Amino acid sequence: MRNSRDFGNRAESKCFPEHIQSPVFPGISPCVSGNLFRKKRFYSYTGGESTAKILRVDMNKLKATCEDVPDKWKNLGGRALTSSIVAEEVPADCHPLGPNNKLVFAPGIVTGTSAPSSGRISVGGKSPLTGGIKEANAGSSFAQKLAKLGIKAIIVQGQAKDKCYLLNIAKGKREFLDASPWMGRGLYEAYAQLMEKFGKDAAICSTGIAGEISGAAAGVAFNDIEGMPSRYAGRGGLGAVMATRGLKFIVVDDEGGPGVEIADKEIFKAGTKKLVAALHEHAITKPGGTLSSYGTDALINVINEAGALPHRNFSSGYDELAPLVSGEKKAETIKKRGGERPHVCSPGCIIQCSEVWVKEGGKDPVGVLEYESVWALGPNCGIYNLDDVGELNRACNDLGVDTIEMGDTIAVAMEGGVAKFGDGKRAIELMDEIRRKTPLGRILANGTEFTGKAFGVTRVPTVKGQGLPAYDPRPIKGIGVTYATTPMGADHTAGYAIAPEILGVGGKADPLDTKKADLSRGLQQATAFIDTSGYCLFTAFAIMDIPSGMEGMVESCNGVLGTNWSVQDAVNLGAKVLATERKFNKAAGFTKAHDRLAEFFKHEPLPPKNVVYDVPDAELDKVYPD
Amino acid sequence: MRNSRDFGNRAESKCFPEHIQSPVFPGISPCVSGNLFRKKRFYSYTGGESTAKILRVDMNKLKATCEDVPDKWKNLGGRALTSSIVAEEVPADCHPLGPNNKLVFAPGIVTGTSAPSSGRISVGGKSPLTGGIKEANAGSSFAQKLAKLGIKAIIVQGQAKDKCYLLNIAKGKREFLDASPWMGRGLYEAYAQLMEKFGKDAAICSTGIAGEISGAAAGVAFNDIEGMPSRYAGRGGLGAVMATRGLKFIVVDDEGGPGVEIADKEIFKAGTKKLVAALHEHAITKPGGTLSSYGTDALINVINEAGALPHRNFSSGYDELAPLVSGEKKAETIKKRGGERPHVCSPGCIIQCSEVWVKEGGKDPVGVLEYESVWALGPNCGIYNLDDVGELNRACNDLGVDTIEMGDTIAVAMEGGVAKFGDGKRAIELMDEIRRKTPLGRILANGTEFTGKAFGVTRVPTVKGQGLPAYDPRPIKGIGVTYATTPMGADHTAGYAIAPEILGVGGKADPLDTKKADLSRGLQQATAFIDTSGYCLFTAFAIMDIPSGMEGMVESCNGVLGTNWSVQDAVNLGAKVLATERKFNKAAGFTKAHDRLAEFFKHEPLPPKNVVYDVPDAELDKVYPD
Repeated sequence: MRNSRDFGNRAESKCFPEHIQSPVFPGISPCVSGNLFRKKRFYSYTGGESTAKILRVDMNKLKATCEDVPDKWKNLGGRALTSSIVAEEVPADCHPLGPNNKLVFAPGIVTGTSAPSSGRISVGGKSPLTGGIKEANAGSSFAQKLAKLGIKAIIVQGQAKDKCYLLNIAKGKREFLDASPWMGRGLYEAYAQLMEKFGKDAAICSTGIAGEISGAAAGVAFNDIEGMPSRYAGRGGLGAVMATRGLKFIVVDDEGGPGVEIADKEIFKAGTKKLVAALHEHAITKPGGTLSSYGTDALINVINEAGALPHRNFSSGYDELAPLVSGEKKAETIKKRGGERPHVCSPGCIIQCSEVWVKEGGKDPVGVLEYESVWALGPNCGIYNLDDVGELNRACNDLGVDTIEMGDTIAVAMEGGVAKFGDGKRAIELMDEIRRKTPLGRILANGTEFTGKAFGVTRVPTVKGQGLPAYDPRPIKGIGVTYATTPMGADHTAGYAIAPEILGVGGKADPLDTKKADLSRGLQQATAFIDTSGYCLFTAFAIMDIPSGMEGMVESCNGVLGTNWSVQDAVNLGAKVLATERKFNKAAGFTKAHDRLAEFFKHEPLPPKNVVYDVPDAELDKVYPD
Repeated sequence: MRNSRDFGNRAESKCFPEHIQSPVFPGISPCVSGNLFRKKRFYSYTGGESTAKILRVDMNKLKATCEDVPDKWKNLGGRALTSSIVAEEVPADCHPLGPNNKLVFAPGIVTGTSAPSSGRISVGGKSPLTGGIKEANAGSSFAQKLAKLGIKAIIVQGQAKDKCYLLNIAKGKREFLDASPWMGRGLYEAYAQLMEKFGKDAAICSTGIAGEISGAAAGVAFNDIEGMPSRYAGRGGLGAVMATRGLKFIVVDDEGGPGVEIADKEIFKAGTKKLVAALHEHAITKPGGTLSSYGTDALINVINEAGALPHRNFSSGYDELAPLVSGEKKAETIKKRGGERPHVCSPGCIIQCSEVWVKEGGKDPVGVLEYESVWALGPNCGIYNLDDVGELNRACNDLGVDTIEMGDTIAVAMEGGVAKFGDGKRAIELMDEIRRKTPLGRILANGTEFTGKAFGVTRVPTVKGQGLPAYDPRPIKGIGVTYATTPMGADHTAGYAIAPEILGVGGKADPLDTKKADLSRGLQQATAFIDTSGYCLFTAFAIMDIPSGMEGMVESCNGVLGTNWSVQDAVNLGAKVLATERKFNKAAGFTKAHDRLAEFFKHEPLPPKNVVYDVPDAELDKVYPD
């Protein structure tokens, strides 16, 4: 059984005090980062200009036209770009599924270059799940092909009146094809057929059956390297925004594309080299390290031992059955069955946390079973059978729903009497309700809070309407601060306080200490930058501990853009992204009253530690005092 | 066919300018009311002290205990009292169906006395439909019996763990009986059995099957004078709050009760005399007048002719079929079939707008078919058959759902493809889904917005999650200002701008004039006072036009309480109630972004006038500038 020390497995840095601090991010460890970067500019501006374009897709007119990138957006990518476009072009008070919402795609700044682990695509819009701004991202060759085609962002607007379309993008080509033949059909089958039609090297983005019924739990699916729909910008219901535009698929071929322009190749090369070195050094990200050996699911045992793995709809933080669905158990099973592990989610990843989970006999490949998915569809539903979890995960991918939201949803439905906790077979049947678009399926496809209302359940683990991820906030206060205050709704990736609180990465913080506003804010800012850069968030493990890694990350962005950002500039950019997102949410009607965990966390102690969530509201409000 | 002049049928007061003004309410017509009342105090304080008590019902312990009324609440009743108690005792951030919400009942100030048309019971709590504070009220002998028993308010708190209870209240008696035998059964049957058990003179309050499944459209039902469950505090889902306390029924017997103490009988008598005179004089409220002849449903033709009767989910403001469900047609049919009309909803009503609708042959009495109910379940669903409407209304009463919310819900479901507009038989079947507690029934029982989400409908006519009543705001701007800004969510009774905009009552206002903030604010304040007094809101028609009527209303309250309120004091009290409610909502997370109509009203012109809702946000924000 693994524990937190094994997961982190790094020598403790003696120079750090016990309290929250990080050697890299200014927001988290001002003293150290101040020493390192002290407003120093690394590089002079090289004047490189991107020739990349914005592709504006008007679904009313079925037209896709290229536009120059306005100066204000030239140095942005990923989340900074999608959030800026959404904030500027989408009325905050619009109906998320109505005619005035837009869906925006943007690869990160370095995406499409040789930068390691950077195949990230950011997707943005107004969320039908939270009612606020939403950014979700995924790792997929789709991101890289878009970038290599010279497309800095796609803005999908309007609503096709008659049917759903497939947008086929290649060099000099933007065609709209009838997607009706794939309506109501699973995405595994659809992706296989599309690969046949457009070639095995095509990249695909799609919305599934859950999106077709406007489910607020519907994600946007992207292809993995086998061409399966297992890579998801899952959270917040953006799949329903895509479907209600009348867009079912985007297929991209980058052949003959101009590639990503790099303003200063030397700087870029030096930067990526430093980052690669850090990733290769850190115990979590190095070859043969935690992530490549076991994947993210290595966290099952760690978080269970910390008493913070939510079992049976957040009723307990520990269960002795958890190791049955651990990363260790899963890796062993994959090996036995002839699946793949380690594996990349997109070309050029050197962390390789991914895998291909298969059934007995190597059948029905699913793609990766992430920690969050395994937890959500497993222990959170009282299910400790990896095959059931694998089948549920495959159903989520096939139907186009977010695994976290769906796991929370099924658990709440179980509490509401729809099924018994632990009944994996019944849970699998529930997924079929979505496929058949029944009233029950429509309830489930709308997520945790909706399902709670439908079945009269008041223990509903959400923030801003979005289901909580795999860390109960009661014994780990900092992640709760992130859940509560991020503009995204409950989202662990928005400011992963688990790193210092449990894993000993990026410094160390007592998980029970309630003073976590500064920690969470710093992490949220740093994360907003990483989500902008195009790098996988898992690079954070290395760069939080190894300053030259963070330096290298920022340098590589400077190399692409011709900027001369310091690490502080990068974090400031993250802060600006958050301010933009919060401004949108404020206009949409969000207040500090929405920066709160669901009520029951404050009143119901979580076994085995028997603690409630006791971070004072004033501490939560300290994260964003404006 | 009736029109607005017939409905109002009053001589125009020459002294009023054309724009918004009223001879009575200071907020609406400061000049005139200023002349009339000019801070004058009518009566000296007589020192009368109420001996009425608050009955606190703890469902955790199954105990009901009497408490003295704190001084600050002694002069309150009805809405002022329920809203004050909710604001003080319910945490604004609690889950409406969780352990920390409370359900509060309070008769009005004059309820239980001989004051005319004053049998109103106010019900308050945090709404599961809007997420904000909620006050809904009904006319029923329940209110009068409670007052006569010396109960100024009931506060229901806690949650029974094992089952649902019946609370039986009589002089010196508070017993909890097992209500399990009535779970899952219709309220018409239950009320008949309870009348048999507790006597035909018993008063009953209940939640129905919709409440049992925690439906946010569940209302609180009260008995009419036949003992049927046709009087509803319908809006905002308070029936679900009642059910989740573990309380299914309250049965009240007032035999031997002390009656309502009247501090100054002379003043009380003089006041009620003036009010009675006004009610007897005004064309709408007098015997043989509009309300007693046709009931509220007389508005069908008036509002249809004004192009503002919403047909087929707010798609058109006029349809030539509307007269088929008009008050005139209904009165004629009732007469033919041997139902009753006019009729009182509670003893002592001199307006007598009520009726007993029956099927062919006098079968299956329903109770009243109000204008709002007929519209919601009729034209709004494309249904123009009074028998279908009657059956739908009976089903709503039987299941314990709000007719307005259910009509909006069915119409949205129809737009979502669940049934065809106009298919009354299918609509009736849909009600049976609630009875059988199916997933579809659970969707419908959660109301308009929920159903819209379930079926991907974006034309969802709500404000703050509550379905719109029977006046399309696009051609009648002022009622839209009330819908948008009242703390209650879309609610015509919160500030009935239709009176001056369409009926020529309380002055005259151009319905298309977008400057309506002052009008709506004044009406909301006056209404909050009337809802506090215990008088039926329909007294407003008379007192808005006849100053001595309003004087009499305030005098009668002074007579009961021993206060010396002026009309201005009364309106100020209304303003205070609104401020209390808005403070609660603010703490619950409401902002000006919630004081808006659903988006489509701003973009989609309504035939036949082809107007959109164009009241600027700034005008809406002027209603409550704080």
